[in-house]
Amino acid sequence: MRSPPETSELDTPSRILMGPGPSMIHPRVLRAMSTQALGYMDPSFLEIMDDIQELLRYTFQTDNEWTLATSGTGTAAMETAIGNLLEPGETMLVRTTAYWGDRMAQMARRVGGDVASLDVSPTEPLDPADVREAFEAHDVDVFGICHADTTTGIRQPNMSELVDIAREHDAYTIADCVTSLSGVPVHVDDWGVDVAYGSPQKCLSSTPGATPLTINERAREKIEARDSDPASWYLDLNLLMEYWGDERNYHHTPPTTPYYGLREALRLVAEEGLENRWERHRRVAGELKAGLEDMGLEMAAAEEHWLPSLNTVRVPDGVDDTAVIQFLMDEYDIEIASGLGELDGEIWRIGCMGYSARRQNVACLLTAMQDALEAQGFDVDEAAIEA
Amino acid sequence: MRSPPETSELDTPSRILMGPGPSMIHPRVLRAMSTQALGYMDPSFLEIMDDIQELLRYTFQTDNEWTLATSGTGTAAMETAIGNLLEPGETMLVRTTAYWGDRMAQMARRVGGDVASLDVSPTEPLDPADVREAFEAHDVDVFGICHADTTTGIRQPNMSELVDIAREHDAYTIADCVTSLSGVPVHVDDWGVDVAYGSPQKCLSSTPGATPLTINERAREKIEARDSDPASWYLDLNLLMEYWGDERNYHHTPPTTPYYGLREALRLVAEEGLENRWERHRRVAGELKAGLEDMGLEMAAAEEHWLPSLNTVRVPDGVDDTAVIQFLMDEYDIEIASGLGELDGEIWRIGCMGYSARRQNVACLLTAMQDALEAQGFDVDEAAIEA
Repeated sequence: MRSPPETSELDTPSRILMGPGPSMIHPRVLRAMSTQALGYMDPSFLEIMDDIQELLRYTFQTDNEWTLATSGTGTAAMETAIGNLLEPGETMLVRTTAYWGDRMAQMARRVGGDVASLDVSPTEPLDPADVREAFEAHDVDVFGICHADTTTGIRQPNMSELVDIAREHDAYTIADCVTSLSGVPVHVDDWGVDVAYGSPQKCLSSTPGATPLTINERAREKIEARDSDPASWYLDLNLLMEYWGDERNYHHTPPTTPYYGLREALRLVAEEGLENRWERHRRVAGELKAGLEDMGLEMAAAEEHWLPSLNTVRVPDGVDDTAVIQFLMDEYDIEIASGLGELDGEIWRIGCMGYSARRQNVACLLTAMQDALEAQGFDVDEAAIEA
Repeated sequence: MRSPPETSELDTPSRILMGPGPSMIHPRVLRAMSTQALGYMDPSFLEIMDDIQELLRYTFQTDNEWTLATSGTGTAAMETAIGNLLEPGETMLVRTTAYWGDRMAQMARRVGGDVASLDVSPTEPLDPADVREAFEAHDVDVFGICHADTTTGIRQPNMSELVDIAREHDAYTIADCVTSLSGVPVHVDDWGVDVAYGSPQKCLSSTPGATPLTINERAREKIEARDSDPASWYLDLNLLMEYWGDERNYHHTPPTTPYYGLREALRLVAEEGLENRWERHRRVAGELKAGLEDMGLEMAAAEEHWLPSLNTVRVPDGVDDTAVIQFLMDEYDIEIASGLGELDGEIWRIGCMGYSARRQNVACLLTAMQDALEAQGFDVDEAAIEA
């Protein structure tokens, strides 16, 4: 017999989480997650699932019957969307130059799809003219859009227009709303997107593990009429909906505790009201942005595409971006993140999501940031010091 | 704008969970799961992952470097095992007549594998002679075994012998230890199984959402040398191990809270000690079994294949199995389950797992069962009444 390893009681540092995710979990969500388990066919548990569906319909602003939580984290929801909607031999159009677009393309290829590349700058929103051109050059079946991009801090405008282009070409649209859902306006039905997914651990401030997903009637019909089964049995929507729908056929063990957390997080959205919540994100992140600009820093995303839930800030010349990140962590227990890929060393990424989007966190971060920059010899603008 | 739905505070009934899973979550695990989130690259979070790996190695009794928690529930771990180890065109041998064998077969086909069927009775353990015959009739690449079957309450003996047959035929073995891990002896290295997975919400008494999985060097080499990528990007072990291993490359958002829960659940295993824990399951479930037999009920699994974590009991003639289940739920807040598939109406399934495996629960269940049977007009044996 091997011997048991020595470990100590769980003892985590008290971080202020202002990176690209996760955000801080709301105390009411933490409390809900300390609730005892229920069986998967217990009527009380099925009611919890019904509540989650109704609350998700509100949060996505949709009437879609197929609205559920996938039993995995955000990437599982992305894979569920692509793996069910795209059939082998069909073509998916995505911006392969972008981080999340590239991930979508990899998934599309793995389930036997072809990829049509939107080979445009990843640091600008998609231009409907480029999208139209791509649709005319390729026979596209599924179009993937990232609504709110954590790598660039850009919010995609013109969602309805992009969806319309896809519809004109008989294609379906998948919208990645991971960083937007409940933080900035998401209107699934008004946009007309066929499939959308969010994230529990960003603007919703729950734990990862049960991820919001919604599918409209048009996409549902395509999925129900597939010639071949999806490659994943675990993420097969036709089977999953037999559990989430009226049949109540057991499919797989659902993640109980993440469901409890998600339900409470969605109740908090309903209590606050979506419009108020969007306004809070704009207001609190607006203070953050103003404070950073007052210090002499420059935002990377243009004002008109600004994403309040994820703020990208240019690293000034002569400043070591990772030293600043480490300083914030060591001295103030604050987490922010560096840029990914091409943007590594170029930007910082500062989240302002859900329960993290509070004035006390912004105030602390601004003070800490000033301190960190001064430690780097950066000449912080007098305006900030006076303010 | 759609309006927010009305919901009330999470209010769950206090069930005693003695079905085939989930078991009751240990209070220390619930407390750990009410801990605030950390970032996925936070050194403190990476330490938690390291702890989980070390504790899992002890629990699986293995030195496998590739030992991790998959970001999903038990079925995700099954799909990870099959989807990574089996390549398109390869053959998987499973008992397709059994519930979990059939699920494995479906997964194998979905990733382009062929299935060789072990068409033997699902209510007996696998016979090595039948397995040897099947290996001689088919060119098998991967062999799937269910070590502890929740549908029949049977524990598979001869694990090493079955693994040896596979090795003699250059095949790899996947062992489903969902209902055995930490409840009855599991010896991954001594058996020689190439891949094994467990469950967090059965004998470990945590929440579903982060599922134990271990892969030995032999299987790892096969997976690293694949000709094609696995169909699932989310469950791709080569990518996952870049995050769990020394590279620490972000792959996907891990399920924070289920990790916290799993770590604490595994610490409880280490504190109790595996041998003591196995003995507790045997002793407490033994009292359950003796009590049921004293009442005049008959166990469905033979004594030598008895699985203490999941006890199958024959429904006596003239007794309505679902009425008894409903009575236990309504009158005593106890959950047990009916039979699945062919065994529906034939057996009850009574779990005795992890934190549910305590004398107070068994005492309550025995009283409740006697009450339920008497309500059905079943002549409970005098011995039980005297005891």
